[in-house]
Amino acid sequence: MQFHHHGYVSGDPRVQPAAGRGVDRPADLPDTTDVLIVGSGPAGMLLAAQLSQYPTVTTRLIERRPGRLEIGQADGIQARSVETFQAFGFAEAITAEAYQITSMNFWSPNPDDVTKIIRSGREIDDPNGISEFPHLIVNQARVLDYFAASAKNGPGRIQPDYGYEFVGLTIHDEGEHPVEVTVRHTAGPHQGSTRTIRAKYVVGCDGARSAVRESIGRTLDGDQAFHAWGVMDVLTETDFPDVRTKCAIQSEFGSILLIPREGGYLARWYVDLGEVGADDHHEVRSTPIETIIAKANEILQPYTLEVRNVAWWSVYEVGHRVTDKFDDVPTDDTDAVDPRVFIAGDACHTHSAKAGQGMNVSMQDGFNIGWKLGQVLTGRSPESLLRTYSGERQEIAQNLIDFDKEWSTMMAKKPEEFENPKELSDFYTATAEFPAGFMTQYRPSMITGGGEHQELATGFPIGKRFKSARAVRVCDTNPVHLGHHARADGRWRIYAFADAAGPGEASALSAWATWMLDGDNSPVTRFTPEGDDIDSLFDVKVIYQQKLDGIDLGDVPTIFLPHGGPFQLVDYEKVYGALEGDDIFDERGISRDGAVVVVRPDQYVAHVLPLQATDELTDFFALSMNDSSRQQRTS
Amino acid sequence: MQFHHHGYVSGDPRVQPAAGRGVDRPADLPDTTDVLIVGSGPAGMLLAAQLSQYPTVTTRLIERRPGRLEIGQADGIQARSVETFQAFGFAEAITAEAYQITSMNFWSPNPDDVTKIIRSGREIDDPNGISEFPHLIVNQARVLDYFAASAKNGPGRIQPDYGYEFVGLTIHDEGEHPVEVTVRHTAGPHQGSTRTIRAKYVVGCDGARSAVRESIGRTLDGDQAFHAWGVMDVLTETDFPDVRTKCAIQSEFGSILLIPREGGYLARWYVDLGEVGADDHHEVRSTPIETIIAKANEILQPYTLEVRNVAWWSVYEVGHRVTDKFDDVPTDDTDAVDPRVFIAGDACHTHSAKAGQGMNVSMQDGFNIGWKLGQVLTGRSPESLLRTYSGERQEIAQNLIDFDKEWSTMMAKKPEEFENPKELSDFYTATAEFPAGFMTQYRPSMITGGGEHQELATGFPIGKRFKSARAVRVCDTNPVHLGHHARADGRWRIYAFADAAGPGEASALSAWATWMLDGDNSPVTRFTPEGDDIDSLFDVKVIYQQKLDGIDLGDVPTIFLPHGGPFQLVDYEKVYGALEGDDIFDERGISRDGAVVVVRPDQYVAHVLPLQATDELTDFFALSMNDSSRQQRTS
Repeated sequence: MQFHHHGYVSGDPRVQPAAGRGVDRPADLPDTTDVLIVGSGPAGMLLAAQLSQYPTVTTRLIERRPGRLEIGQADGIQARSVETFQAFGFAEAITAEAYQITSMNFWSPNPDDVTKIIRSGREIDDPNGISEFPHLIVNQARVLDYFAASAKNGPGRIQPDYGYEFVGLTIHDEGEHPVEVTVRHTAGPHQGSTRTIRAKYVVGCDGARSAVRESIGRTLDGDQAFHAWGVMDVLTETDFPDVRTKCAIQSEFGSILLIPREGGYLARWYVDLGEVGADDHHEVRSTPIETIIAKANEILQPYTLEVRNVAWWSVYEVGHRVTDKFDDVPTDDTDAVDPRVFIAGDACHTHSAKAGQGMNVSMQDGFNIGWKLGQVLTGRSPESLLRTYSGERQEIAQNLIDFDKEWSTMMAKKPEEFENPKELSDFYTATAEFPAGFMTQYRPSMITGGGEHQELATGFPIGKRFKSARAVRVCDTNPVHLGHHARADGRWRIYAFADAAGPGEASALSAWATWMLDGDNSPVTRFTPEGDDIDSLFDVKVIYQQKLDGIDLGDVPTIFLPHGGPFQLVDYEKVYGALEGDDIFDERGISRDGAVVVVRPDQYVAHVLPLQATDELTDFFALSMNDSSRQQRTS
Repeated sequence: MQFHHHGYVSGDPRVQPAAGRGVDRPADLPDTTDVLIVGSGPAGMLLAAQLSQYPTVTTRLIERRPGRLEIGQADGIQARSVETFQAFGFAEAITAEAYQITSMNFWSPNPDDVTKIIRSGREIDDPNGISEFPHLIVNQARVLDYFAASAKNGPGRIQPDYGYEFVGLTIHDEGEHPVEVTVRHTAGPHQGSTRTIRAKYVVGCDGARSAVRESIGRTLDGDQAFHAWGVMDVLTETDFPDVRTKCAIQSEFGSILLIPREGGYLARWYVDLGEVGADDHHEVRSTPIETIIAKANEILQPYTLEVRNVAWWSVYEVGHRVTDKFDDVPTDDTDAVDPRVFIAGDACHTHSAKAGQGMNVSMQDGFNIGWKLGQVLTGRSPESLLRTYSGERQEIAQNLIDFDKEWSTMMAKKPEEFENPKELSDFYTATAEFPAGFMTQYRPSMITGGGEHQELATGFPIGKRFKSARAVRVCDTNPVHLGHHARADGRWRIYAFADAAGPGEASALSAWATWMLDGDNSPVTRFTPEGDDIDSLFDVKVIYQQKLDGIDLGDVPTIFLPHGGPFQLVDYEKVYGALEGDDIFDERGISRDGAVVVVRPDQYVAHVLPLQATDELTDFFALSMNDSSRQQRTS
């Protein structure tokens, strides 16, 4: 965490100084806004937190509810989401209050008496160390609380506007705020009355029955039949020994997915109520909780479950459905028209809760669109950047639906339908990278390079998220995770992995560093807005092959020790070396000739290039960035 | 973190339900209180946080300042303090915003040109893994903020009463609240006027010039001469390469202790201004900051230091002084009279800032007296328990003074006075356990047993703090630090390390467990207050020698799976096994015949006994606990 550089901060350093629109942000919803977010779920709240880092942009978020979410809904947090929380500054805090999944147990009918279940397997969660972050369970309400704090404590000081419901929108052909949105007061003295707001962009994060989606004529397509679940968050007395371990329970009488919850006592029980057809007309929703508890007891035999307190429960049906496009641009106009309205999260994709995916994929939708809107609305990128959102995220949603269909079909199988008892647990282990959130790989585009030089950094696959590794930070000798320094502040990261020479010696790295700082055509020179700090757009770091004692800060090129802020202080935290016994070059397959690894603001690897490929580096950024007027700068 | 067991908690689980006096705590200072804390420094604020866990006790804390501390004062946080923060629930949060010391560099005159300094050594901080917790630097103001949050969020809802200064006290011979305290308003409409408050106990945490100390006739004894320091928290531009590493700099022109501060930019510079005699009459305090900066530049040659912003600075003189007793009981009445007034922190001991000890030792003073007051005021212990405070802490303070004298004398030596250039860094490494806070070892007393059975658990020395080790928590398969489950909730911990048999087999462990639950003379039966949960006084855990898959929760004795709370739910988090490849029995030298390890509420090992020594266990607790009326209980 870096602070004090604008002067001493006495209080919580997580509260950043207000700036731009955040300095005097109106409490009431204004008549115009740059961005209007509809819905305060995981996608919408992450988006608000991200845009709070762009304080010159006006962002408002409307929510139908009169206040914060209290209970219920999603609870599965994959490692990729914790990695994302780290970038927003609250991974440690939420982990401390979460349930941590370290294994999953499988129960199936006892072959000696198929009416009773026995434990048939235990699989370690993330046995291959896919991530340094844990797999958590914590209620969605708390995730939203943390994003709300991040949005409020960011320079933009964004807080949700509760009590407004989205009614409809019209996109005009002209004007600075072409999207006219009608909203209705759901609470307070004006309850029931409507008003309009004009926005540059609208993002619908308003759930499976999204009115924003409907307003742009998109539909969820997929299953006609639905699967019904009874779900309950309960405090219980039971002799079932695995009540504090995540379990998939298959019995002759149906199946249960058991998710222990944060705090040591509560658990969520998903009890399978079977498939229902379209002709059920939601009859299943009137299933009483007593039926769900009875069903759970039937499945759990020979164990029993006594419910002492019900925190929340629901019966719901869900199908596997996805929208074909996540913005308002007709499919045949994709290359000609820039979008104005986007949808994200459950508004785009619905599926079973079985794999604990929904909240996670939704947050990544928000992370994807967030920096793009920020980049465009601050004039750093052309509006065409926004076209990449739908293309990148629709494919991920389709993958999710496909995966979830396979997983939930398998979980709904009767025990005798499996070829072998370990089929379910084998599938769980074999596909672990997907539910952990790390299978996403974006295709080449204006913001994702081709793989011509991938061999220079085999451990950083282009298009996948930057998988952090440890290095030593030279200035304070701290062994740190290189990637954890990157915060969700909208900046691009450029990691310069050095060739063999050390600091102070002539090398490909030192030539690159000089060019990066002073070259007429370097990205820093061409794209960093005039008057901004030299590292405001590109956060440029160096990792030397030498260990700590081989690196003298006095010999490190200036681009890696930039001055900034009102006191023009040096940022010392951009210079790294290899750790003894844990060499990042080996860990991530980095060439000993060096490499430049470019990482997007949402943590995805955008490009890998040789240190010599300076023109290619600038050309890559020129695809998605506007030239600044600056042509020269001094450090 | 455990919660939800009294029903669903929607918001931050760190906010515990209000109870007792916390339910309707008056905002204004009342006329009577059980405990009156004077001063909101580290000792006082920890004490308030601790007593918030005893909500039936009325606790008020008065502070002369009108509000929270903004800046300045101590910043060194030893690992023992971070361990303490963990018990109060904020180790992760404060670590995330702190500077972490991983090495210390030593600079001395260049033999080729003694007017210039060169780096002469680098020592790893905690090379021997004394603790799993880091060594931090973070401003005292933030430490106090976190304790303030803990005090406010605890069941007692304690908040400081700002704007009151302690004037004096009288101890009466009788009455429920025998200590009559006069306080003066320092702010607000009543500024300058005085009033009285009656308290059962008063704790003076009011600093080096403690008025509470004076009121009980104690004095600080020690040095007559003082050492003067210029200290400044500054943002700088410098070519000194180690500005982000802790450094001891010895030059021909004087010495500097450089402490990089949290946030990546700020640093604290202690610049030695030499010894001053009593006849200086504080003249040295008028040294201007320009002189300190000039002195720093002289010492740093060939490097230069330009100060861009001064966050805080001060000139102070300090001697090595300690009080002979930390309460109001005359030395010759120690065995006959119970104390009513205590002093803690700088009120008892002052010394140099060089070893970064002050705030840390002060906090342990508060931790020591806190649970004892709680225990007595809830009727669980006789008042004689309070006599142990002065005896335990005065010796620690004397050790601190002795250590600090040696260290600061060494740091003030001229380079040519050292026998060899590594003398300073060798001393630093050799004595690392002391400044890390782990040398404290309490002597045998009513709350610290003798060493007759120490060989059963050689890694848990009696009288020293319980050094945690890792184990697997059976219920959720999480590998965890056994000691991190212990919170500063005033409970005693009893760790039952099992003999070789597993759960469900007859063994010394299972016999002990049965006795502990049902035996007429077991500590649980004799001392747990009637009507309280079975684990309200003793938190009893078991650690089996078996690995995870050898432990079936269904076979574990009931004392380790107690029911509690309004829904009588099972606490599953008391049953542990050995980790594969990291066996706690080996790590801590536990006998394979088992052992009972007793740990005090302030985390110090109180006793080690065989599983068979049931009478001895009860006899030990009988020394410091009152019998409850309960003679039988059911689980």
